[in-house]
Amino acid sequence: MMEEDMENGRSYLERPRKFSTVRSKKSSIPLVFRRLMRINPRALIILFLLVFSGVLYVGASTSPIVVFVFCICTLSLFFSFYLAKWVLAKDEGPPEMSEISDAIRDGAEGFFRTQYGTISKMAFILAFIILGIYLFRTTTPQQEASGLGRATSAYITVASFLLGALCSGIAGFVGMWVSVRANVRVSSAARRSAREALQIAVRAGGFSAIVVVCMAVFGVAILYATFYVWLGVDSPGSMMVTDLPLLLVGYGFGASFVALFAQLGGGIYTKAADVGADLVGKVEQGIPEDDPRNPAVIADLVGDNVGDCAARGADLFESIAAEIISAMILGGTMAQRCKIEDPSGFILFPLVVHSFDLVVSSVGILSIRGTRDSGLISPIEDPMAIMQKGYSVTIMLAILTFGVSTRWLLYTEQAPSAWLNFALCGLVGIITAYAFVWISKYYTDYKHEPVCLLALSSSTGHGTNIIAGVSLGMESTALPVLVISVAIISAFWLGQTSGLVDESGNPTGGLFGTAVATMGMLSTAGYVLTMDMFGPIADNAGGIVEMSQQPESVREITDVLDAVGNTTKATTKGFAIGSAALASFLLFSAYMDEVSAFAQLPFKEVDIAVPEIFVGGLLGSMLIFLFSAWACSAVGKTAQEVVNEVRRQFIERPGIMDYKEKPDYGRCVAIVASASLREMIRPGALAIISPMAVGVIFRILGHSTGQPLLGAKVVASMLMFATVAGILMALFLNTAGGAWDNAKKYIETGVLGGKGSEAHKAAVTGDTVGDPFKDTAGPSLHVLIKMLATITLVMAPIFL
Amino acid sequence: MMEEDMENGRSYLERPRKFSTVRSKKSSIPLVFRRLMRINPRALIILFLLVFSGVLYVGASTSPIVVFVFCICTLSLFFSFYLAKWVLAKDEGPPEMSEISDAIRDGAEGFFRTQYGTISKMAFILAFIILGIYLFRTTTPQQEASGLGRATSAYITVASFLLGALCSGIAGFVGMWVSVRANVRVSSAARRSAREALQIAVRAGGFSAIVVVCMAVFGVAILYATFYVWLGVDSPGSMMVTDLPLLLVGYGFGASFVALFAQLGGGIYTKAADVGADLVGKVEQGIPEDDPRNPAVIADLVGDNVGDCAARGADLFESIAAEIISAMILGGTMAQRCKIEDPSGFILFPLVVHSFDLVVSSVGILSIRGTRDSGLISPIEDPMAIMQKGYSVTIMLAILTFGVSTRWLLYTEQAPSAWLNFALCGLVGIITAYAFVWISKYYTDYKHEPVCLLALSSSTGHGTNIIAGVSLGMESTALPVLVISVAIISAFWLGQTSGLVDESGNPTGGLFGTAVATMGMLSTAGYVLTMDMFGPIADNAGGIVEMSQQPESVREITDVLDAVGNTTKATTKGFAIGSAALASFLLFSAYMDEVSAFAQLPFKEVDIAVPEIFVGGLLGSMLIFLFSAWACSAVGKTAQEVVNEVRRQFIERPGIMDYKEKPDYGRCVAIVASASLREMIRPGALAIISPMAVGVIFRILGHSTGQPLLGAKVVASMLMFATVAGILMALFLNTAGGAWDNAKKYIETGVLGGKGSEAHKAAVTGDTVGDPFKDTAGPSLHVLIKMLATITLVMAPIFL
Repeated sequence: MMEEDMENGRSYLERPRKFSTVRSKKSSIPLVFRRLMRINPRALIILFLLVFSGVLYVGASTSPIVVFVFCICTLSLFFSFYLAKWVLAKDEGPPEMSEISDAIRDGAEGFFRTQYGTISKMAFILAFIILGIYLFRTTTPQQEASGLGRATSAYITVASFLLGALCSGIAGFVGMWVSVRANVRVSSAARRSAREALQIAVRAGGFSAIVVVCMAVFGVAILYATFYVWLGVDSPGSMMVTDLPLLLVGYGFGASFVALFAQLGGGIYTKAADVGADLVGKVEQGIPEDDPRNPAVIADLVGDNVGDCAARGADLFESIAAEIISAMILGGTMAQRCKIEDPSGFILFPLVVHSFDLVVSSVGILSIRGTRDSGLISPIEDPMAIMQKGYSVTIMLAILTFGVSTRWLLYTEQAPSAWLNFALCGLVGIITAYAFVWISKYYTDYKHEPVCLLALSSSTGHGTNIIAGVSLGMESTALPVLVISVAIISAFWLGQTSGLVDESGNPTGGLFGTAVATMGMLSTAGYVLTMDMFGPIADNAGGIVEMSQQPESVREITDVLDAVGNTTKATTKGFAIGSAALASFLLFSAYMDEVSAFAQLPFKEVDIAVPEIFVGGLLGSMLIFLFSAWACSAVGKTAQEVVNEVRRQFIERPGIMDYKEKPDYGRCVAIVASASLREMIRPGALAIISPMAVGVIFRILGHSTGQPLLGAKVVASMLMFATVAGILMALFLNTAGGAWDNAKKYIETGVLGGKGSEAHKAAVTGDTVGDPFKDTAGPSLHVLIKMLATITLVMAPIFL
Repeated sequence: MMEEDMENGRSYLERPRKFSTVRSKKSSIPLVFRRLMRINPRALIILFLLVFSGVLYVGASTSPIVVFVFCICTLSLFFSFYLAKWVLAKDEGPPEMSEISDAIRDGAEGFFRTQYGTISKMAFILAFIILGIYLFRTTTPQQEASGLGRATSAYITVASFLLGALCSGIAGFVGMWVSVRANVRVSSAARRSAREALQIAVRAGGFSAIVVVCMAVFGVAILYATFYVWLGVDSPGSMMVTDLPLLLVGYGFGASFVALFAQLGGGIYTKAADVGADLVGKVEQGIPEDDPRNPAVIADLVGDNVGDCAARGADLFESIAAEIISAMILGGTMAQRCKIEDPSGFILFPLVVHSFDLVVSSVGILSIRGTRDSGLISPIEDPMAIMQKGYSVTIMLAILTFGVSTRWLLYTEQAPSAWLNFALCGLVGIITAYAFVWISKYYTDYKHEPVCLLALSSSTGHGTNIIAGVSLGMESTALPVLVISVAIISAFWLGQTSGLVDESGNPTGGLFGTAVATMGMLSTAGYVLTMDMFGPIADNAGGIVEMSQQPESVREITDVLDAVGNTTKATTKGFAIGSAALASFLLFSAYMDEVSAFAQLPFKEVDIAVPEIFVGGLLGSMLIFLFSAWACSAVGKTAQEVVNEVRRQFIERPGIMDYKEKPDYGRCVAIVASASLREMIRPGALAIISPMAVGVIFRILGHSTGQPLLGAKVVASMLMFATVAGILMALFLNTAGGAWDNAKKYIETGVLGGKGSEAHKAAVTGDTVGDPFKDTAGPSLHVLIKMLATITLVMAPIFL
């Protein structure tokens, strides 16, 4: 152990140059992308066909299901290119708009490069650590029997980790790439037609959503097929196909690793700029949001792209990847226990569900179209209603295709009605998603009581506003927890009664039922992600319209789109945390299976009545509090720097307020960028190091007190308590933040004195407090929960 | 089940008259007390001697240890009477002071009567429910063998419950009774000498601290001795002495039940008045704290008494009672397993520890004396240092007496060195207490970095202040959790290696080691409670001085005392939550033993990998969030009513600001009183009903899915997750609140612009947000954690 660490330590010191090459490679990706788009189309097609036939060949030697998945993914990629082309074909508007949009793009791409440079450095360090751990660990007899040596398993894990990290990075990049291009096109279109603006924003969001989902599915499928062929799975003397999914865990960990830092860095960036801009601009100087006189406004707009678009892309990418992998593991385990003849249906089921997700989401995205070509949105036609209609279409189709997939893949002669039970599990998941979306809307939309009461509490001052918002957020945890509890128990019960039994006749389908419910929940992920991506694009478009001082009518259109975007963003967070809760529960059992296999000891329970395991739980819950604290305080600290800089500019350049002098936007961008890169390290490192440290410490303690598996058990309890605390904390932070934001918007509609009143000032305070809650700490917790689950899986060898 | 509930339902409807008699009886308690103080001393002495010899007789037939405990308690009661007499002999100052103090006293006693009237009604309803449950449950073979019939066990439980509730009520009453009398005497003394004022406040706090500890010890000891004699324990054919402590659980539950509502009602009262007064007075009108022109000022001062004094008295009473009982249960279980010949030492150990606590705390209280009779405190002589010196004396003596107690009671020939290990466990507890006090001081005192940074964040606005405070609070959970983790593991390990083994040679002392550490932590409870009670008395005295417009020099003295009181209050909360964490861990295992005994099934583990049990954990954590939400929002809502009333008075009586008109203090008192009584019901009912509901639902689910004990296990996991989440949430709320308060105080010393600056306004916002955190939700969570543990113990029969 020690030597290994030393070695890694040394390699870390010796490698700075290598990292910088990596970094420059990484930073050239945007260029590569742009080049790709300019290449001779014929050469591109030939290249593509070559790659595709290679992939198809590998897929065909694995299973026809994989071929099906490959085909759908390829078609979806074509569809996403169509969307991108459609969006890019739109005009960029007058020069004053594209000037602003260029500044935003430069800021966003600059930050993205630096941030992902840092992240890739850390990813390589971690890859070496993983390699070291896997090279020095003992192999299980199972592995030895299947000829999977120590080195092979090490390289497989590290390769999956790096591929996951790379894909996660691309997911983030794609989200940002399209949003910095679509924003100005939406602004320009808003001058002509609200309908067109809506359509551009939706299709831009749709592009990155499809790419993200595609990459998650494609990545897992390619890894699966490659390992299958490479390791000669299911041929005599090699490993069984049911053990294959465990090798993919590294992919999930890589994805979460990058997503965590992307979310932290981006979240700190966007909210520090936002809070800083609001505190001086809105509260002290009384100028409107996104006013060009505010020196922090460009930083704020850049933040929307790097925080919301890039980070949410990485976030949902890793959600889907982690969920697919854990469901595949559980499907494999169950198929093995029940001695199902052809287990590949159970293992590949998640991939098929998400292939159908791509199809139905594409239909949903296309259903939002500019039927009336140049008409304004009529007052009755609420953009929210249009998007809801699209969602309903998607959900209906998803229910249908889910039924088809279960009948196709989960039908076995052993238990002829099992597929029906699993289809019901899927329905449970879809209903859960609906309920989560509805609950988040109830607590964050000002059409309902909670936000109205919150707005009312602003009329008695800043203090009562904050107290009411904190209470609202804490209260809002109750219903989602009840829903998730019912979902877990009923899906488990449906699975358990599916008729699938193991050798000794015990029902075994329970956990897989929960897995299917999770898939059901995520079966419309593409469309949900589209709605989510729509938010920051609309927000940015509004900012560009405001900054380029367009007429009131144009602003009105973008304001409506922005408000809709706020609601969809809030509901997506509910969706993300719900799926995280379900997915983590699956990863627990995968972890326990993994540990049990390695240690060759039964590991069936995590008994919190044992003091050490209880302490693990305490530490896990504490981790959530500490992580949230550091994430919030990072925003607070950076915002303070922004406030001081903005104040300084207003004092040193008194002409800014009369539009006589131009503020120095660049300095604010630079301050926020460097501060958020610095501040993302501490919470991120905490999340990665603490489970490893706890596992190793209790492993040593267990050895000296004669408790085998103590380290692994303490980590399991840490993971579970952290998940529970994380779900609650994320719900609290997201909802409180969303409610504060909308309470402010509600007052801005004119109630309680409207803009400029004392109540409005109190509401703005609430909004600034809510910013780091809902866009930094909250979404990072979604990622943290899943990253803890995957890190414990990958690092399991060091706890034993 | 159903019939039973129906019956209770009916009895509830038929019994209103009976309740009103109960209520009038209860409300006459103050009168009884006052009468007692005026009775012929000789008659009193004779009465006392009769009761005492009866008690002594019962004690003598039980164990000489009980006699020792009785004697110490009696002496301590005499000592507390001496303290009370000493305090009451001081003068009440000029008429303008006693006028204000009379108003405070009337408000406090009026609220106390109504509040405890409501609480006693609910206690009686609950008593009937418990009676019903116990009359209909099945008895264990053990019980049948010992001749403890269903009816007897029902009456015993209900009687203990009611006695616990009564004592908890008295504890609260005593705290309030002395504080409303001492406050004016401290104000008056502050005109002469700071030292005298300090001494009066300390001795008044000491009086109620000694009475509270005494009552906890005396109550448990009398119940123990009575049951011992009544049930003929240890005679052939009756129950064994090791099973006796389980019968006392009702006492703990009664105590927590009353403490919960006392803390909720009092906490809402005090902070709603405080926040309301601050928001209008300080923020809007810019008048100082406790200014006579503020219509809510009397309500605020009343709140200190009913919230801090009465509630904290009940809080620590139930802490000590619950900890004594759980340690006795564990001692009994362990003694039985190890077949120790005379188990009474292990069972009665907690009583002896707290008897010594009474002695050493008395010494500590006396060590703070007015050596220089009429001198002012010299600038070097910080009152905090004086109190710290007293604490050091107490701690030193506690370590000594703890060693003596372990050698005396825990020495067995089976394991001759066990007592030494347990003495070390006690030391672990004492060190933990010290560490907790130090950590709370670090995070809440403005001599250290965190509060200074918080104050600095106020300079950039309300928003950054709140973000920084929330992060500070969340971050402050880390160190205490690490300390408690180390304490639990090391005490467990010390106990495990003590040499005590069961029949099959397995070490069994681990849990008892943790219990001893808890006792160590609480071994200076008397002195800590004194320091805590000192706070609100000094605060009130300051208010009276301010309101009666005394000269600046007098105000300075009370300001210093008030600041010290704030620190001691914050540190006591750390102490209380630490001991709650340890005590709950003991109650878990008591619960598991109890369930196992009743169900005659092994109940050794709580496996959170089972979906239902995991869901129980989710629900438990959610309970904490929902409870905190409701507690905070109760304060917010009530404060809004106060704000509106105060604003109305300022508008309708414009002369108030020039001292020309007198504000209507009474209306504010009435508003706060009725609102807090109304608002305390919802969170309180949640805490009591939800564990019962979860237990029953999962019991039914378990029956239908063939999982025995499912209800009990889900409740256990709910309890443990709630405890962990509760500890973290309470730490967060207490520390954030304390830090905000002191950041404001720090700015008031003149930094960052001092009073009236923008930074100060932001800091006041933080302070008002922190008020419900630190004085309503936070302290209620301490009680909630322990109440959950005792309610599950008492209600165990309905989960099976």
